[in-house]
Amino acid sequence: MSGSTFARTPQPPYYAVIFSSQRSAGSHGYSETATRMLELAAQQPGFLGVESARGDDGFGITVSYWRTLEDITAWREQVEHRVAQQRGREHWYLDYELRIARVERASGRPED
Amino acid sequence: MSGSTFARTPQPPYYAVIFSSQRSAGSHGYSETATRMLELAAQQPGFLGVESARGDDGFGITVSYWRTLEDITAWREQVEHRVAQQRGREHWYLDYELRIARVERASGRPED
Repeated sequence: MSGSTFARTPQPPYYAVIFSSQRSAGSHGYSETATRMLELAAQQPGFLGVESARGDDGFGITVSYWRTLEDITAWREQVEHRVAQQRGREHWYLDYELRIARVERASGRPED
Repeated sequence: MSGSTFARTPQPPYYAVIFSSQRSAGSHGYSETATRMLELAAQQPGFLGVESARGDDGFGITVSYWRTLEDITAWREQVEHRVAQQRGREHWYLDYELRIARVERASGRPED
């Protein structure tokens, strides 16, 4: 994903979905689906933002931020997203780990 | 950082430090210090693992995992790490965001 940038999240508490993954070789429509999932996530209730990075070795981390655990559950059960999850397991990821965490503190770079 | 891989974390709960950053151009000893900080973190009490990815655009995410909030505080106050943090603010990062979160659930790829 190009154009990676910081999520503009509110004051904690809120929730983070930390998705770490190792991509397999080959595309199988990965980029298109990844872009579409970002669009779709942004339309979901409680979506606060997303940050994503992947290195040349294919190991990547995407963190999406959500207002509540219920918002995360709804997103994980969204129909089009479920299809993408299935494709991810079958084609796109050699391995992955999904962690759900409650963000308790946040701080940025001090102003110059 | 090369050789990125998954952290082998225990059952939740535990804590995550999500560090998102935009690298500036130029090295200023970044790689050496990053490697050294990983070594040093791994020796800290309560360290559970780390995952890291950075794209060609210089945007990266590093998530380190810790047993308790106190372990995170101790790591942030570790002297050599504090020097590195200062250099990060001055030389290595155009911008960054640090979030501390309590991991409540985790799940991986189902076995084939």
